[in-house]
Amino acid sequence: MNIPASLERLVRELARLPGVGQKTAQRLAFGILKDDITQARALAAAIVDVKERIGTCGRCFGFAEAELCAVCGDGRRDPAQVCVVEHPGDIYVIERSGVFHGLYHVLQGAISPLDGIGPDQLKVRELLARVAAEPIAEVILATNPSMPGEATALHLSRILEGKVERVTRLARGMPVGANLEYTDDVTLNQAFTGRQVFGG
Amino acid sequence: MNIPASLERLVRELARLPGVGQKTAQRLAFGILKDDITQARALAAAIVDVKERIGTCGRCFGFAEAELCAVCGDGRRDPAQVCVVEHPGDIYVIERSGVFHGLYHVLQGAISPLDGIGPDQLKVRELLARVAAEPIAEVILATNPSMPGEATALHLSRILEGKVERVTRLARGMPVGANLEYTDDVTLNQAFTGRQVFGG
Repeated sequence: MNIPASLERLVRELARLPGVGQKTAQRLAFGILKDDITQARALAAAIVDVKERIGTCGRCFGFAEAELCAVCGDGRRDPAQVCVVEHPGDIYVIERSGVFHGLYHVLQGAISPLDGIGPDQLKVRELLARVAAEPIAEVILATNPSMPGEATALHLSRILEGKVERVTRLARGMPVGANLEYTDDVTLNQAFTGRQVFGG
Repeated sequence: MNIPASLERLVRELARLPGVGQKTAQRLAFGILKDDITQARALAAAIVDVKERIGTCGRCFGFAEAELCAVCGDGRRDPAQVCVVEHPGDIYVIERSGVFHGLYHVLQGAISPLDGIGPDQLKVRELLARVAAEPIAEVILATNPSMPGEATALHLSRILEGKVERVTRLARGMPVGANLEYTDDVTLNQAFTGRQVFGG
């Protein structure tokens, strides 16, 4: 096997990233090799930069370039709504969509007894402290529609009862572009149960 | 939209890589953010390093860290067999498999009239020069089983006729792990046409 050492090393480094297997790492490495050196340097700088600049927001635990993240530091956001997510990246996705104008709270995971992750391993205590201290009227549970995400949402809905006006969760149903034929039973069940008046 | 600028920049740089869309770039960026700074620096260094170290082999046009690539510089490789591929990355894949012990020749693309790419835009003249100068008995055409790859293989097989003992190409058929139900007609046709004696 005669492969340049620097290429092997790059493939190995790339393959360490989550969701990147050997083939994807190869494809990425070949892409980087096709770039000119300026582009490769820009990518390398962006990687180091992101780690050096981005920390955790002291209030919501999202990505922050200062002590508070840009959302928490933005006075125009609605402090009455707090959207609870599992990971900081979830905030990125919701912000890109532009659909939500309140604040966030990152749990830094989801309840998963098999992995030894209970409420104490998550930022649940910090959420309760915020609910007590901030003018929060609605907590929107935006944990993932997975087993740990659902367990987390159920737990939070119980401990938040009576402490906040409303606890809601994101609607369940058919995603846009889905195909009935390939929709799983649970989603189909939720789509029927939560069916909405046409045009409503 | 309140997204840290350094994160946006990293996602944009990653999304420039071939085959990386917005979602993949996000996932990679979140992965890098989960890394510790040492790992991020190692990845950044590997990216710059690969560009600074790897050039093009003066003989086969594959990836090379010196004037000749490691394959061309390895006296134990069989100089009688030359495997012709479209891209340098194809060599990486074949080398990893350990299945081939001859030399390579990278065309740097495939014939595609619609994109203005003919034999003159590829390293075809250089292949003919090698066939004339080197003790090559067999040219193995390993271009992709795509329209451009097939056109290139056909062209090469014609111009190599009489100049080399044998011109072969990689076998066509069902890939390992494939499923008859999902196999396309052309592959199925090639699998039947090229069927082999069981155990042979």
